[in-house]
Amino acid sequence: MRWSRFFAYTLKEAPKDAVVASHKYLVRGGYIKQVAAGIYDFAPLGKMVLDNIRNIIKEEMDKAGAQEVMLSFVTPYELWEETGRAKKYGDELLRIEDRKGQKFVLSPTNEESVVDLVRGTIKSYKQLPVNLYQINLKFRDEARPRFGLLRGREFIMKDAYSFHATREDLDREFNLMQETYEKIFERMGLDFRVVEADSGAIGGSGSREFMVLADTGEDDIVVCSECNYAANIEVATRKHEKRENPVKTEVIEEVYTPDKKSIEEVCEFLGIDPYFSIKAVAKKAIYDDGKEEVVVFFVRGTDSLEETKAKNAIGALELVDASEEELEKAGLVPGFIGPFGLPFDVKYVIDDDLRMAEELVCGANKKDYHIKGAGLLDANLLGNLTIYRDIAAVKEGDKCPKCGAPLRITKGIEVGHIFKLGTVYSEPMNATFLDENGKAKPFIMGCYGIGVSRLIAAAIEQNHDDKGIVWPKEIAPFVVDIIVGDVKKTEQLEFAEKLYEDLQKAGVKVMLDDRAERFGPKIADFELVGFPVGVIVGKKLKDGKVEVRDRKTGEKFEVEAGEAFEKVMELINR
Amino acid sequence: MRWSRFFAYTLKEAPKDAVVASHKYLVRGGYIKQVAAGIYDFAPLGKMVLDNIRNIIKEEMDKAGAQEVMLSFVTPYELWEETGRAKKYGDELLRIEDRKGQKFVLSPTNEESVVDLVRGTIKSYKQLPVNLYQINLKFRDEARPRFGLLRGREFIMKDAYSFHATREDLDREFNLMQETYEKIFERMGLDFRVVEADSGAIGGSGSREFMVLADTGEDDIVVCSECNYAANIEVATRKHEKRENPVKTEVIEEVYTPDKKSIEEVCEFLGIDPYFSIKAVAKKAIYDDGKEEVVVFFVRGTDSLEETKAKNAIGALELVDASEEELEKAGLVPGFIGPFGLPFDVKYVIDDDLRMAEELVCGANKKDYHIKGAGLLDANLLGNLTIYRDIAAVKEGDKCPKCGAPLRITKGIEVGHIFKLGTVYSEPMNATFLDENGKAKPFIMGCYGIGVSRLIAAAIEQNHDDKGIVWPKEIAPFVVDIIVGDVKKTEQLEFAEKLYEDLQKAGVKVMLDDRAERFGPKIADFELVGFPVGVIVGKKLKDGKVEVRDRKTGEKFEVEAGEAFEKVMELINR
Repeated sequence: MRWSRFFAYTLKEAPKDAVVASHKYLVRGGYIKQVAAGIYDFAPLGKMVLDNIRNIIKEEMDKAGAQEVMLSFVTPYELWEETGRAKKYGDELLRIEDRKGQKFVLSPTNEESVVDLVRGTIKSYKQLPVNLYQINLKFRDEARPRFGLLRGREFIMKDAYSFHATREDLDREFNLMQETYEKIFERMGLDFRVVEADSGAIGGSGSREFMVLADTGEDDIVVCSECNYAANIEVATRKHEKRENPVKTEVIEEVYTPDKKSIEEVCEFLGIDPYFSIKAVAKKAIYDDGKEEVVVFFVRGTDSLEETKAKNAIGALELVDASEEELEKAGLVPGFIGPFGLPFDVKYVIDDDLRMAEELVCGANKKDYHIKGAGLLDANLLGNLTIYRDIAAVKEGDKCPKCGAPLRITKGIEVGHIFKLGTVYSEPMNATFLDENGKAKPFIMGCYGIGVSRLIAAAIEQNHDDKGIVWPKEIAPFVVDIIVGDVKKTEQLEFAEKLYEDLQKAGVKVMLDDRAERFGPKIADFELVGFPVGVIVGKKLKDGKVEVRDRKTGEKFEVEAGEAFEKVMELINR
Repeated sequence: MRWSRFFAYTLKEAPKDAVVASHKYLVRGGYIKQVAAGIYDFAPLGKMVLDNIRNIIKEEMDKAGAQEVMLSFVTPYELWEETGRAKKYGDELLRIEDRKGQKFVLSPTNEESVVDLVRGTIKSYKQLPVNLYQINLKFRDEARPRFGLLRGREFIMKDAYSFHATREDLDREFNLMQETYEKIFERMGLDFRVVEADSGAIGGSGSREFMVLADTGEDDIVVCSECNYAANIEVATRKHEKRENPVKTEVIEEVYTPDKKSIEEVCEFLGIDPYFSIKAVAKKAIYDDGKEEVVVFFVRGTDSLEETKAKNAIGALELVDASEEELEKAGLVPGFIGPFGLPFDVKYVIDDDLRMAEELVCGANKKDYHIKGAGLLDANLLGNLTIYRDIAAVKEGDKCPKCGAPLRITKGIEVGHIFKLGTVYSEPMNATFLDENGKAKPFIMGCYGIGVSRLIAAAIEQNHDDKGIVWPKEIAPFVVDIIVGDVKKTEQLEFAEKLYEDLQKAGVKVMLDDRAERFGPKIADFELVGFPVGVIVGKKLKDGKVEVRDRKTGEKFEVEAGEAFEKVMELINR
């Protein structure tokens, strides 16, 4: 491509709301342009990167035997009523009406659609398994769209849905998809981790996420420093450590702790290791039937509550902060809540790590008082509603549940998620096949997503510097940028044109920067737009020299003009 | 692809509302499945055909120097307000609101979006010309979606928009796009015509349509029997024929024509050739500012009114039938309307063919009376508002405007439309560039559309028989279908597998029908789904023979098994 004929532009200023590198550089580099909050146009450069990613995904999905379909984007609301998600999905599901008043949704995901496509057309176990995928538009009406393509409203997703006669066959496909995803992200040149994950609103029995590692990631990932254990913090577990409290209390006693509300204050005041205390986190839970109630979660003083775990523990749709008034109305004493003597009708959950723990300090449910020497040995003390669940967040230094080595926490951007759905969708939608005995059974399903447009941003979050993007060559819009120092100098232009043609013949994607621009801005554009290799055809050509640059390492090689082609190919292939 | 592992199914019954072949066969052949009125899922077979078409279009657009973008599908309503189309576009524009109450539209076309992308990023004439295209989702909330993919609501369109500094450069690009479109439709193996066309709601100064010829087409195309003249009936013209009325009337006179309201009745009653009569067609015109009025159109008794021409003649948004009450309220006498003595404030238009015509019969604007011997020589007779326009529909046998040979009328399906927009969009949107003298000028634009998903249906309307689809090989999902007569016979399966692999190696798209099905249904599926070439590996393989079929001609060739490959390649390449 010749830049002089190409619709590519670069901007000096990043948008005011751009806080992450990918958002800034995608807009400044002329890849995307914002249309509305979370909605973007893709300019030619952006479309090229999108297509590179799309092609890698399509090739690997096809190789794995999946078949491409295209499900409608505007989808009948009534399909979503069949599974109950019409109500459950929340405000991210944009509901619309056509001119006749019929209700539709803009597809945020397509489980219902694909089940509707398959029911009635796959009739027998002989037609199974089938894995159908699409690379298609999605819309989620995010409350706070942000970070450019990382959390948009309109976006491109690869979603695949598999149908099986048995759980074993689903397991096989789930593993195949994991391998396929690994190949896809490897081919894209990304550093990523496969982690255990929460199944969220999609539902089902098991899931794994694919995380591109990047400091700006919104997800916390727990990884073992020794073995291959990796999990989203939302589901990460740890080895239980049993420490004995060196302090032995003779009797359980109430102690006066005036105005000491936080665990830190109380423990300091009483001279106690916070490990031997119980922290209470009171939340307002909202359920899918609209019901709301205050729920208290108890974790160790040294732990913090993991909200997704907490939500799943009680089956709530959402947890929000409860106000002091709401707590008091529920009979609780803010700052002094503990598991003993709670009002009978307040639901509470205790973290697994506290099971059988003794010699603890906790709130006394009485203003300005805590309890010392409490033990959770006897669950009956706590009444009938006692439930223990894993609700604490794993923290740096906790022990790996697999090997016991210390765990680390790192940041990741979720770019893929695979689920074992089972019959969560096929059962309510009455989608069945006839098994070997002629008996109707609901399809056993898996589903497999990749955030295609988000991957563009994730790749940049992982690969950039303070000058611009550093594309992995597999997804770069152009791999080589030939910069003509002065297009009025015929010898420079001719040499560049020849090199451009030679590289194109060799199958390399090349940009020829033949604009009548100054040299400085051309170099700045090379760095901002992020081409992996640059060739500078400038003044030194008179002496038979050109410069070849590696964008990633910053290395500059002065080579004989006749060796420029080889040097470029060497840098591409190393 | 092995059918046994492929998600393809065929249905015995066509949908009840399917009246055209493409709708029936696309649904029965497992290409598409209806989701709602005018909204379809594409099953793998349908997606393959779509991709074949998409790839041809992309290749030719790229060759022509156009650059692919992806404009947002959900588009801010305010962009549409800038050009006034938010109101003008009518109910096909689906307006939606997000969770915060912001207004958007589902893109039915993207002139506003692309102008918004370009304004501010293209600043100088040096960056022009640019042609940006996309192959993307569109939504038009049709009042009566029908005919499957021919008139859907959600569909795939290729839309391109070019930006120029001069009218001459737009003309050059317009011609280039016409050539590119011709290549595209030729490569798809379609019989089509390029015709002069009306610019409709898109606006602009000139346009051409690309029509796939098919009996079921909704458009009437006027073609010359001798030269290359071709036009949509909405804009077709004809050579003016001047015939002299053999009857000479001494004086203009009112004649009593009791209850004779239609031209036929009146002319028969008066013994007059209807060519020498004036037919009045009264309509209610609706304008884009909401204004409504009765307008009378006068054409020759032997002609009929062409509504698009009539609409354009008065700049109306729509013409609808006027009721007798509405006519009477406007001071008209239904059945007896004529150009002389009309109420002063009734707008009327006379067809060009009647300019200077004499010796005519027309309504007398008086119940039960017509006028004989009227002449239109003296326009002043008709008052100040007299306008002559070409508003009559060209009919079979009229004379070609270019060469005078008889015109024919044929049916076509519009699959492409190219427009010279000029500054219709850039001016109201204030999208300018700096010209050579540093002066800001609005972009001069062209736009170029192809109905991508509609092409699937158009190809079938032109290529089918009573058994199913007859795909042109360039867009067939698979070019060859190898049918194994009995998969339990090892020698049949082995031979078929070998041929399957050989053909795949030769780059041929092959389906291997290895289903444990009876022979009859497999043949029926071959014909319905419409693979261009079939190979039947059946009982005769014992004698070293297989059958090769040409789907289009119906020819059956019994060949030596060893020559099957050559025969298939011969049929593909002929």
